[in-house]
Amino acid sequence: MSSAVKRFDYQQLLQWSNDCLEQAGASGEIARNVSFYLLEGDLLGFSTHGLIRLLNNCQWLRDGSSRAKGQPVVISERAAVAHWDAQLLPGPYVVPQAIESAINMAKQAGTGTVVMRRSQHVAALASYLSIATEQGMVVSLMCSTPGQRAVAPFGAKQAVFSPNPFAVGVPSSAQPLLLDISFSMTAAGKVRQAKADGVNLPYAALIDSNGQWTDDPTTFFAKPGSAIGPLGGEQLGYKGYGLTLFSEIWTMALSQFGRRQGSADGDANSVWVQVIDPTAFGDEKEFLQQVDDLLEDCRTATPIDPQQPVRIPGERALQKKQQQLQQGLEYSESTLKVLNRCAEFTGIPLPAAL
Amino acid sequence: MSSAVKRFDYQQLLQWSNDCLEQAGASGEIARNVSFYLLEGDLLGFSTHGLIRLLNNCQWLRDGSSRAKGQPVVISERAAVAHWDAQLLPGPYVVPQAIESAINMAKQAGTGTVVMRRSQHVAALASYLSIATEQGMVVSLMCSTPGQRAVAPFGAKQAVFSPNPFAVGVPSSAQPLLLDISFSMTAAGKVRQAKADGVNLPYAALIDSNGQWTDDPTTFFAKPGSAIGPLGGEQLGYKGYGLTLFSEIWTMALSQFGRRQGSADGDANSVWVQVIDPTAFGDEKEFLQQVDDLLEDCRTATPIDPQQPVRIPGERALQKKQQQLQQGLEYSESTLKVLNRCAEFTGIPLPAAL
Repeated sequence: MSSAVKRFDYQQLLQWSNDCLEQAGASGEIARNVSFYLLEGDLLGFSTHGLIRLLNNCQWLRDGSSRAKGQPVVISERAAVAHWDAQLLPGPYVVPQAIESAINMAKQAGTGTVVMRRSQHVAALASYLSIATEQGMVVSLMCSTPGQRAVAPFGAKQAVFSPNPFAVGVPSSAQPLLLDISFSMTAAGKVRQAKADGVNLPYAALIDSNGQWTDDPTTFFAKPGSAIGPLGGEQLGYKGYGLTLFSEIWTMALSQFGRRQGSADGDANSVWVQVIDPTAFGDEKEFLQQVDDLLEDCRTATPIDPQQPVRIPGERALQKKQQQLQQGLEYSESTLKVLNRCAEFTGIPLPAAL
Repeated sequence: MSSAVKRFDYQQLLQWSNDCLEQAGASGEIARNVSFYLLEGDLLGFSTHGLIRLLNNCQWLRDGSSRAKGQPVVISERAAVAHWDAQLLPGPYVVPQAIESAINMAKQAGTGTVVMRRSQHVAALASYLSIATEQGMVVSLMCSTPGQRAVAPFGAKQAVFSPNPFAVGVPSSAQPLLLDISFSMTAAGKVRQAKADGVNLPYAALIDSNGQWTDDPTTFFAKPGSAIGPLGGEQLGYKGYGLTLFSEIWTMALSQFGRRQGSADGDANSVWVQVIDPTAFGDEKEFLQQVDDLLEDCRTATPIDPQQPVRIPGERALQKKQQQLQQGLEYSESTLKVLNRCAEFTGIPLPAAL
């Protein structure tokens, strides 16, 4: 695959994706945000949730699945929480707003929480974390997908849940800690990618209709299909199952928008945003020192492989971002196919590779 | 082992453990709380964090590692958060107070958070969840142990973290959802129990000093010892590692009391308590309906084994509680040894078995 990788200039892609979105009907502000945060996903290495999703975003704007202008509606508010209806505005437009609102509440109340129903697809949660960490704030993000069933509860071979991501951002004296994981054994995007690339998954993450674990991504698209296993797998999958229930309740039940309401909403998400102001608990420098100490303990722990020291979540993503900003963003052949389809859809040619 | 199980009356054990704690110096209110919540752990089936910890609690009260009277000190407060120094008061005394305080904040602000340093050992987080769920509140609890290193970061063979539990409680129209899991492949208490029982762990949860995975609990007590692996193991341990960092930052870094401060504090914990008032986001009945719908989807998912329908977290624990309240609490031979040592320590004989 790597032989077919091509590189593209960041600024050119930003302009191109912005133009595609505007061509599909987005307001200038929406186009700027969606293009910026999709590219941020690619920069950080979340290639299944980066510009590969631009075509979807343009299609949704064109067919009305995504609103092209407007603002989220506030359903309810208290000093430290708000409940918004995002009315199918694009996730990369409403999530940063929710984080900013949560930051403002946290500065006053210590924490700020925004629960949001009907955000159109949020793409990579990791893309948004630095909005909070750059202001010295601690943040956690979760989302779920009322229109999707892909992950089985522990002990089941039938999908009930979406593969829900959980992301946290924490400032330190140096780089922030950026974590973005799912509570399942893999993400649906990775299964799609493996099928597109014609390869098996790196391990048996799926439970097929016979109740057997498998690494074959094609089983996921069969009828009846396989389901993604919860984190922890055969032995400890009750933990991933519990964490998935946690994420579905904190997103869908609190926003009162679950699978009975949003089954026809495609990739739209119910979203949890919580910001914590560490200075509500004490001195900022002391907090940063605590984070530094913890990360130092990890970095200096004896590695299993002496050549592979322990990494901090986000470390490699931030390296990748710097590298791609300098040398261009890398896209695989299968992703380039989707980008070229977006160029056809909008009539705006993809910039030339570097 | 089950041949050696004995049963004891709940009320008699409650009185006995209360008397032991008072004999060790605890105030009446502290004795009542510690005995009640340790027994609650046993009732729910968390036998490594139940009355087996009474001897420790009595010893700590006697030698001053745990304070026998007093109240937590408020370090800082905002509308939705508080930071408390528990001053080594017993966990089962201060955690319920922190939850009540968080409930009061949540009723006003939508959420309430209490971060607490220097709580003496909190035992089973599951024991406290119903304080919130019985008031219609959603709750999450986490703790970490500055004096303990038992869990390795992903890619390391050296322990850095404590095996941190994460617990959530959610009301439904029927029984609440009660989840209490660790972010590691097992808990230190389970490794101790396996060693005491002379059995191997049910799977390879430990990484030995050669970097090999093992199910042998004796390796954990060797020099150099093995470390508990993060949830996700060899393939997905970066997820358990990330979740452990999340729990250590939300507990130790926010309370500004980590391993540089509390390395000599034994089993004392840094604690995170967060309560969410679902009525801050909308109608209470609609929230309960959302939870009911989600749990119904889990219960009716096709099981891998037709004889084993999918269970809801807490379901078996609440059954076990009802059963043990009626038929007596069950204790294994190895736990009874510890209870008898506590009887000797305090001079108060253990009640007779049923």
